[in-house]
Amino acid sequence: MPDVNRRFLLKQRPEGRVRREDFELAEVPVPELGDGEALVRVLWLSLDPTNRVWMTDAPGYLPPVQIGEVMRGGALGRVVASRHAGYREGQIVQGLLGWQDYAVISDAHPALPVPDDAGVPLSAHLGALGMTGLTAYFGVTDVADVQPGETVVISAAAGAVGSVAGQIVKNLGARAVGLAGGPQKCAWLTGDLGFDAAIDYKSSDWRDQLAAATPDGIDVDFENVGGEIMEAVFGRLNIGARVALCGLISGYNDAEGPAGPRNFGNLISRRARVQGFLILDYFGRWEEGARQLASWMAEGRLQHRETVVEGLESAPTALNQLFDGTNTGKLVVHVAD
Amino acid sequence: MPDVNRRFLLKQRPEGRVRREDFELAEVPVPELGDGEALVRVLWLSLDPTNRVWMTDAPGYLPPVQIGEVMRGGALGRVVASRHAGYREGQIVQGLLGWQDYAVISDAHPALPVPDDAGVPLSAHLGALGMTGLTAYFGVTDVADVQPGETVVISAAAGAVGSVAGQIVKNLGARAVGLAGGPQKCAWLTGDLGFDAAIDYKSSDWRDQLAAATPDGIDVDFENVGGEIMEAVFGRLNIGARVALCGLISGYNDAEGPAGPRNFGNLISRRARVQGFLILDYFGRWEEGARQLASWMAEGRLQHRETVVEGLESAPTALNQLFDGTNTGKLVVHVAD
Repeated sequence: MPDVNRRFLLKQRPEGRVRREDFELAEVPVPELGDGEALVRVLWLSLDPTNRVWMTDAPGYLPPVQIGEVMRGGALGRVVASRHAGYREGQIVQGLLGWQDYAVISDAHPALPVPDDAGVPLSAHLGALGMTGLTAYFGVTDVADVQPGETVVISAAAGAVGSVAGQIVKNLGARAVGLAGGPQKCAWLTGDLGFDAAIDYKSSDWRDQLAAATPDGIDVDFENVGGEIMEAVFGRLNIGARVALCGLISGYNDAEGPAGPRNFGNLISRRARVQGFLILDYFGRWEEGARQLASWMAEGRLQHRETVVEGLESAPTALNQLFDGTNTGKLVVHVAD
Repeated sequence: MPDVNRRFLLKQRPEGRVRREDFELAEVPVPELGDGEALVRVLWLSLDPTNRVWMTDAPGYLPPVQIGEVMRGGALGRVVASRHAGYREGQIVQGLLGWQDYAVISDAHPALPVPDDAGVPLSAHLGALGMTGLTAYFGVTDVADVQPGETVVISAAAGAVGSVAGQIVKNLGARAVGLAGGPQKCAWLTGDLGFDAAIDYKSSDWRDQLAAATPDGIDVDFENVGGEIMEAVFGRLNIGARVALCGLISGYNDAEGPAGPRNFGNLISRRARVQGFLILDYFGRWEEGARQLASWMAEGRLQHRETVVEGLESAPTALNQLFDGTNTGKLVVHVAD
């Protein structure tokens, strides 16, 4: 049995970008298990924009992480000891295990079993087959209710959620237009993932490119970014358009939080709908979504890609990749084998 | 037969508030009627926030009024001559008759018949029983889908749409909390119209009053105003809240147009829905709504109130009352008897 647990404690609330010194890497003994508890070795950490939101003091869908607490984060790990009938040694689980080497799970702090399929890398269960994949799935199929032939614009399209959302849009017979940063990401979207068009938002004429790629307007906006990109999309919404509001990453580093679009009034003239959503409201339909995603993956109609960062100690600064757009696909930290 | 028609032509696009000199009051001969046309004497002009939007050059749900064109506006009038089988002399009609003494209607520019009931003032068909009343009706019942017991906040609650919306909310068994400018309007809302609470947004502690009046949060926002008021409401939305986005009057005088809320991200954490809407999408259900409103009015459960301005020549400057909040209820111009 291990005896030391490294854990990132929130030391101070970051201003703007996250810095290493906003956290303390504490070394504490691995706790003794009580009855009804199990110990999980964290293997993979999921880095998500929502991590940044949890570091702020603003009320959200979960309480802010308090100063001195272990940083909250989704992760996947292996049960290494168990005094809980529902968890067995060797089992793979995922949940909010936190930024640490070892987590204690229990009925009060549960984790979900993860199928250990041959052929599917474990970390895909944090990505295309996990939380971000299901966010894309329910956002496209339920929140936005995408119909065949519709034009769907996806921002942060080369990110974990966006890249899956675009592939689902294609699988449903609709048009997928992605916005991503840089020619390499754009080439990946159209070349490998089958997007109908990809627009490099770092190019000077991206607004013109967006107009050219959506000659019949935009029926659905799968919104991950906010800011100027969202405003450009709002300017091209068709009557009856739907906005699946998944994230507003461009504003998460701002002290004020992400602002609404300056052309908010377009929602009236276009009779458009904005629906904010969180995957946690779809936990009851998890199996339905996971089965469909796994089936598409088996058929070669859903690709999983990830950017891997090595070592728990890299977690705080690696999170900035999401905001710099340096990752492609799902961003994960490899903590242990 | 009259021989002179006064008509307000848009001379230049207003900057900020509307001024008299943004319009030319032209005097032209009343046109000869062709086959399939009828002549309408305008009796009442409806002044609405949307008039201001139509004066701008921005694309909207209707094209901008062009420089030199008759100002577009809803109005009610009497048919004084007809060469159209569908319109008879003496009949009362309403439609986009424009800011003028006489309008020509036809199949290309139609008007709707108005019931000439004893007991109901004609101008009520521009207000509680007309376009604004039906906007309130479908906004509350269909767009926001208000349920008994829910807390509904209505901005510009003493305005034409808001005052009707609040009464409908009460008729449906939900709680109505209104925001209005000044103690007199607030007293009217709670004393006469049955609102559960009314908040004077000109008082320094209006945010505290809003919090006190919505201890269980806000389930529905019937939004007419935008800006700081909308932000305060967005800050108190419950999970699953709906925003019926009817108007954003606080931004209509701004060159930039009405901006989105700074706390736009709350839509995600609260899984809230914003739905923009226009009454024109409900024309197919006009009779259903009009019948219900008339029935409530007959039962004494729907009051109609209006602010009357005398004379066509007052129309441009009277429009500013909507933005200053000096009108109560429906703002109309009395053009002729």
